[in-house]
Amino acid sequence: MKTGMLGGTGLEGKALALRLGAAGLPIVIGSRSAARACAAAEQCNSILKSRCVTGAANPQMLTACDIVFLTLPHDQAASAVQGFAELFPPGLILVDVTVPMRFHEGRPEFVEPSAGSNAESIAACLPSGVHLVGAFKTIPAHVLEDLDTVMDCDLFVCGDSADAKARVMNLTGKIPSLRPVDAGPLAAARILERMTLLAVHLNRRYKSKGARFRVVGI
Amino acid sequence: MKTGMLGGTGLEGKALALRLGAAGLPIVIGSRSAARACAAAEQCNSILKSRCVTGAANPQMLTACDIVFLTLPHDQAASAVQGFAELFPPGLILVDVTVPMRFHEGRPEFVEPSAGSNAESIAACLPSGVHLVGAFKTIPAHVLEDLDTVMDCDLFVCGDSADAKARVMNLTGKIPSLRPVDAGPLAAARILERMTLLAVHLNRRYKSKGARFRVVGI
Repeated sequence: MKTGMLGGTGLEGKALALRLGAAGLPIVIGSRSAARACAAAEQCNSILKSRCVTGAANPQMLTACDIVFLTLPHDQAASAVQGFAELFPPGLILVDVTVPMRFHEGRPEFVEPSAGSNAESIAACLPSGVHLVGAFKTIPAHVLEDLDTVMDCDLFVCGDSADAKARVMNLTGKIPSLRPVDAGPLAAARILERMTLLAVHLNRRYKSKGARFRVVGI
Repeated sequence: MKTGMLGGTGLEGKALALRLGAAGLPIVIGSRSAARACAAAEQCNSILKSRCVTGAANPQMLTACDIVFLTLPHDQAASAVQGFAELFPPGLILVDVTVPMRFHEGRPEFVEPSAGSNAESIAACLPSGVHLVGAFKTIPAHVLEDLDTVMDCDLFVCGDSADAKARVMNLTGKIPSLRPVDAGPLAAARILERMTLLAVHLNRRYKSKGARFRVVGI
């Protein structure tokens, strides 16, 4: 089985496809338009100098993949999950990488979801038998995308299914110098999503684009 | 001027006194009881093999110090600040190190303050001319206390007064291998206080006591 990107033609989807593809994993970029998905896959393959990334319309991508990243804008992920619910095979693992943040008068703001976190809002829309894992919330897409940058940080993975979380940690652990850590239940997304706001502030304050976190002492 | 600990005879106050004292800074531990304050200071001096830590009743401590750490339980800090307001000299810098967390059926829970963070709740009780800075919220007291442990992490400092924040960063930057970083306005405490919950989870999951954070890429 392959790893998919639902709505994967944007920066986040291509950045994840590049890092996971560079780690030798077969990836399917999904999109509403199969042509746009194929074009994004070609961009990735040309950077990777490989053929490991393919493109497909989202429904076809879903039949080929057992782990699918939700690489849509944060305010579209829950409704997309509802729209695709009937196409999700039982046992599918969805990985939510979204952060509910907007810019107001040039300042980043956390858009507090009623469920406490975007991950929990999305989980409330899932059919039974499909598991949601939160990951990559604190990893800047710009860093993922630039394969010359050593990740050198931790990947916080949260979720309520221990098995699904372990499978996502196993998959993402193939990315060099990225350490997956078990960040607890899905509700830990309340913390992880806010940490991105801190990273954005640090980037501005210290004129960087790549602030990310590492845990010392574990 | 010296650095004080308001209600400093507990673990947090002594741990901070030890690390700052080890960095060569003169410290006054304050307490409701001058005798308990002096006993705590003696404990610190005996570990430090120095005389840099003294003890005093809280009001006397406040007259000797220009930067004072609020090392009380999280749910007592705001009322203590109200109680001592008349004794605060103009220009005093208070440093809030509290985290509003409790354990419910053995699990750590964030006790959401109505102001968004404990730091903001405390700030709402301050007389004008006294500045509040948030710091050390993500640094475990157990790590601070054990002088044999290299800190090896970042200290997130937040506040709405740039000058007060800079002075706290300058002071705490004297602790070896601890990098103060400007984490933004006081409202960033909403993130920092929640990050402690993540650290507590990681400690349990990975059988550690010292999970703390470092920012990569700045």
